[in-house]
Order: sequence, then C-alpha cells, then structure tokens
Amino acid sequence: MADATAGATARSLGEDALVARVLARLSAGPQVLLGPGDDAAVVAAPDGRVVATTDLAVDGVHFRRDWCSAYDVGRKTAAANLADVMAMGGTATALLVGLVAPPDLPAVWADGLADGLRDEAALVGASVVGGDTVRGELLVVSVTALGDLAGRRPVLRSGAGPGDVVVVSPGLGGSGAGLRALQDGVRSGPVVERHLCPTPPYALGPALAELGATAMCDLSDGLLVDLGRLCAASRVGVELDAAALPLAPAATRDDGLHGGEDHGVLATVPLGLLAQAEELGLTGVGRVREGSGVVDLDGRPFPEGGWRHY
Amino acid sequence: MADATAGATARSLGEDALVARVLARLSAGPQVLLGPGDDAAVVAAPDGRVVATTDLAVDGVHFRRDWCSAYDVGRKTAAANLADVMAMGGTATALLVGLVAPPDLPAVWADGLADGLRDEAALVGASVVGGDTVRGELLVVSVTALGDLAGRRPVLRSGAGPGDVVVVSPGLGGSGAGLRALQDGVRSGPVVERHLCPTPPYALGPALAELGATAMCDLSDGLLVDLGRLCAASRVGVELDAAALPLAPAATRDDGLHGGEDHGVLATVPLGLLAQAEELGLTGVGRVREGSGVVDLDGRPFPEGGWRHY
Repeated sequence: MADATAGATARSLGEDALVARVLARLSAGPQVLLGPGDDAAVVAAPDGRVVATTDLAVDGVHFRRDWCSAYDVGRKTAAANLADVMAMGGTATALLVGLVAPPDLPAVWADGLADGLRDEAALVGASVVGGDTVRGELLVVSVTALGDLAGRRPVLRSGAGPGDVVVVSPGLGGSGAGLRALQDGVRSGPVVERHLCPTPPYALGPALAELGATAMCDLSDGLLVDLGRLCAASRVGVELDAAALPLAPAATRDDGLHGGEDHGVLATVPLGLLAQAEELGLTGVGRVREGSGVVDLDGRPFPEGGWRHY
Repeated sequence: MADATAGATARSLGEDALVARVLARLSAGPQVLLGPGDDAAVVAAPDGRVVATTDLAVDGVHFRRDWCSAYDVGRKTAAANLADVMAMGGTATALLVGLVAPPDLPAVWADGLADGLRDEAALVGASVVGGDTVRGELLVVSVTALGDLAGRRPVLRSGAGPGDVVVVSPGLGGSGAGLRALQDGVRSGPVVERHLCPTPPYALGPALAELGATAMCDLSDGLLVDLGRLCAASRVGVELDAAALPLAPAATRDDGLHGGEDHGVLATVPLGLLAQAEELGLTGVGRVREGSGVVDLDGRPFPEGGWRHY
C-alpha cells in the first residue's frame, strides 16, 4: 500500500482522500473542543475573547518550491500567523488552513505542509483544527490563526507616546541575510535557514504585554516599514539608532532596516521599563518623539528601502 | 478623483491602497472588539468557546466571472462559511478574508467582493474583521468564519441514532436547478439567482440545536453526499423518501438528491420532536435505522451522482 501511494498526487487521490491523509498527521491540544471533520471546529476562548488573523502564501510569490521544502512552507506560513497573534500580546490556540492544490501536486507535498504547520503550531501549544482543500492551477496556502489574550488587553500599534523607548527582539535582518544567500546560490546552512524558517520569539509578545508595552507589532515587512506603520498609527515620530540594531549573524545593517519576514517583535515601552525589557532579551533602538515618521540620530529620514520577498 | 480610479487595478493601486479601499466599505458590529488594521483582530467569544471554519473559492472552479458578479462571489463565499457555523448550531460573529488578486484585477471587483461579504455577514450580525491581499496569477478568495454557540453544545454529524427522523430545510435543489439554467444559457432570474447567491436558513441551525437535534450538517455537496457523511459519522443508515423532498421551484428530484451548494440544513431529530421541527419549517424526509448508507423506501441504494459545480 505504501508503494502504491508513493507517487500519489492531488488528482489521483481526490480531495477527500488527500484531506483524510493530511488529517491523520495532526494532533489536538487541550484547547481543541472539537477538531477537524465536522462542519466547523470548536476552540476554547477562555477569557471570552478570541484573537484572529489570516495570511496567504502563494507559490512563486511568497515561497519557491525549488528553494524550500513543503515542511518549510508549513513552518513559515504558520509562523507568520502565530507571530501576528504574539504581537497582540496573545498566544495562538488554533490554526485553520486552506490549500489550493494543482492536480499534479504530490501528496507528499501536502504531507510535508501539514507536518510543518503542526510542528510550528506545537511550539506555542496550538493545533490545526480545520481546513479546506480545493483544486486550482496555482498552489496557495491560506492560514488563519486564533489566539488567547489570557485576560490582558491587546497591545495595539497605536499606543506609543513621546518619551517611550523602541525595543526589538534579537536576530534582526536574519531573514534578509538568508534571502541574499539564496540569491547567491547558497541552498542550505544556518543563514539560509533563517529565511526559509523564521523563529518568532513567541514568549516575548505576552511578556511585553504583561510588562506594560505601550505599542507592539510583528516585524514582517522590514523594521523601517513596520516602525513607520507604528508611528502612523500612534501619530508619533521615532528617532532610530541604526547602530544599535541587534543584527542576526551575517545580517548587514541594510538587512536589519529593510529585510522582511523576520517575524520578530517590535514594541515601545516607557523609559522606566527599558531595563526590564532588556532582561527579557530586547534591545532599545530608538526613542519616540512628537512628529511623524522614522528619522536617524541626526534627524534625517532613512533612504528608501522596504520589504523584499525573494 | 473618482474618475482617476475608475480603471484602477490591483497592480496600479498596490496592495496597501487596495486594502485601504476595501476596508473603507466595511463596518463593525458590537462583537468586534478590535477590527482590521492591527496585527490581528479581537472578537468577543461570550461563552468561552469559538466556532471556526474555513473555505476557499477559486476562479474557474467555484465561480465564473462571466456568470456572476464580484458581489455574488462575496455573498456566496460568505454564505458557505456562515452556513457551516449555522450547522453546528451557532451564529457567526466574524469573517476573515484572504484575496489572491491577479495584477489586472479591477479594483471595483475587490469593492464588489467586500460589499457582498459585508452584506451576507450582516444577515447574521457578523462583521469582516480582518484579511490579507496578495498578488498571484489566479483569483482565489479564502474565507474563515468565527461563531458563537450561546452556551449550547455543538450539534455534530455523529449524533444520529436509529429511530430519529431526517429533516431538511426548504428549497432543496435550488442551486442545482440554477446551475442547469446557467448551463442552458440563462443569465438572470430567480432560478439562476439560487445558484449564484444561495440563501442559507441561518436561524434554523440554532433553533434545531435548541430543539434537541441529534445530528446536523450543512447541505453543501448534495443531499445524498452530505447525508452519506452524516450516516458514516453516526454509524447508522438512513431510509430516504425521495418523494418527500421539499424541492425549490424548478428543481427536479435529481437536483434535490445530487445538487450541491444549497447551503440549507440537514438534521436528525427524535421522532417526538418532528412536529416541532415541522413548525420551524423543516420537512421530514427519512428515518435513521441500524446499518449504513442511504437507501430508498425499498431498501435499495440510490444511483450514483454527487456534487457538481458549474
């Protein structure tokens, strides 16, 4: 039987068999009150609220099948959503997954995707609780994450005030450095791995919320872009010390400023909490001030840059 | 300004402007504690649980842009998900939407989609609370619905027992009849409308749960397919009276047995509750018995058929 399905594709199996095969690879944590298989799942929302976010990943736009395995795609698409929940100060509880599968998609690719989603979710105790698989000529993965705030208020992008300190998690620019390595032909190793499979600091979101962060967001589109959005939402400016960025190994300052997909955390805290934020592993990289936009220590805007996929 | 953007496309606007344009068309109900614009949304889950389901719709597979408007696609993709929440006995509270947009997609198409999603969600008091828009060569809409059970247990597919009565909501085969009309070249009118824009009986799910339905599911893939799944999940058989089906106008018995996408509700209730189920507007169409599979009144399996998209 194993040999008979080794070359199976989405077309040869059909949607129902493909789904059954994927479901068999999943497991359910205690917050899953009803898992996959019925019209909908039921997930615990202990504090009477649920955090929810969704992201799409498209073959050839957000990932390349010649650069990364299905397992990597699963890890990374899960990470992008789990990090969004983290950046509200929450912890993810569940993922729902949609897969648009070209007819010739190997069933083992779907297996790998499921394994990656499952393993990344497990890092925060979350489970894949539902999904949908349909045919289509383009491979697309959609992921929705649900999460719990444990009674805390969500930390928004809009709460930064003049005098606050900007803090970021370590490893800035790691994904960007990995992307450059891939573009240079490197196909494996720790630098590339940071692009293919980012490792969000999941515990830091709730810890910063607990500490009293005034604003927070996920580092997904590059520090300058994400910090610019935080400034706009909070109607403030930021003076950024680019020399202070806690860069990943092999990352340049440009990677740290412009590289996307690190899925670290960016937050603002009152000055009096900086030492405690540093104890959590964060680094102060700037100060919030009146005004708008991100400027350097001499008050000048940074050169244009921005988020880059591969 | 209106004229300047009349011919706008996903490419000419860019993702951020497209998202901003779509967000401006949405509104938020009281259960939305934090709407779109931050890393994630926060939605009320008053009874400490959340119902969650996700579905994908692919251009050329699940809808045809020459047959239906963007508004219709929004209504229908929302309906498919809201009906899944209904079929657990819940009421939807929120939708999250993913859009893979080809670069030449007219921005007015995204507007229409948003309007359709918003208006269908409003039928149950739900709101669009988040989303993601990315580029890709195939138009794909992913929708995730969240919902509330108001303290009730979820009604599963697996609870039917011998002696229960099978009940269905009115209008069976309406979508299938509309599909046949479209295939025959009809492009408008009430029959076609039932395929392009199904009208799930949203109040019936919670009402059946309250009444004491033993099993329930959404009618999405055709009565025989969906009833077969309910039988398998409940480890029972069903004797179906095909002459009793409450067919939609213009629907044939074949439409009622095999036509998909009605998004009505299928449930089983103890015999003693049949009269109350009928008062809700449901029709008894069969009896649950020991065994497996769906058979006719003479004990014979039905001819093969099944779910048909266009």
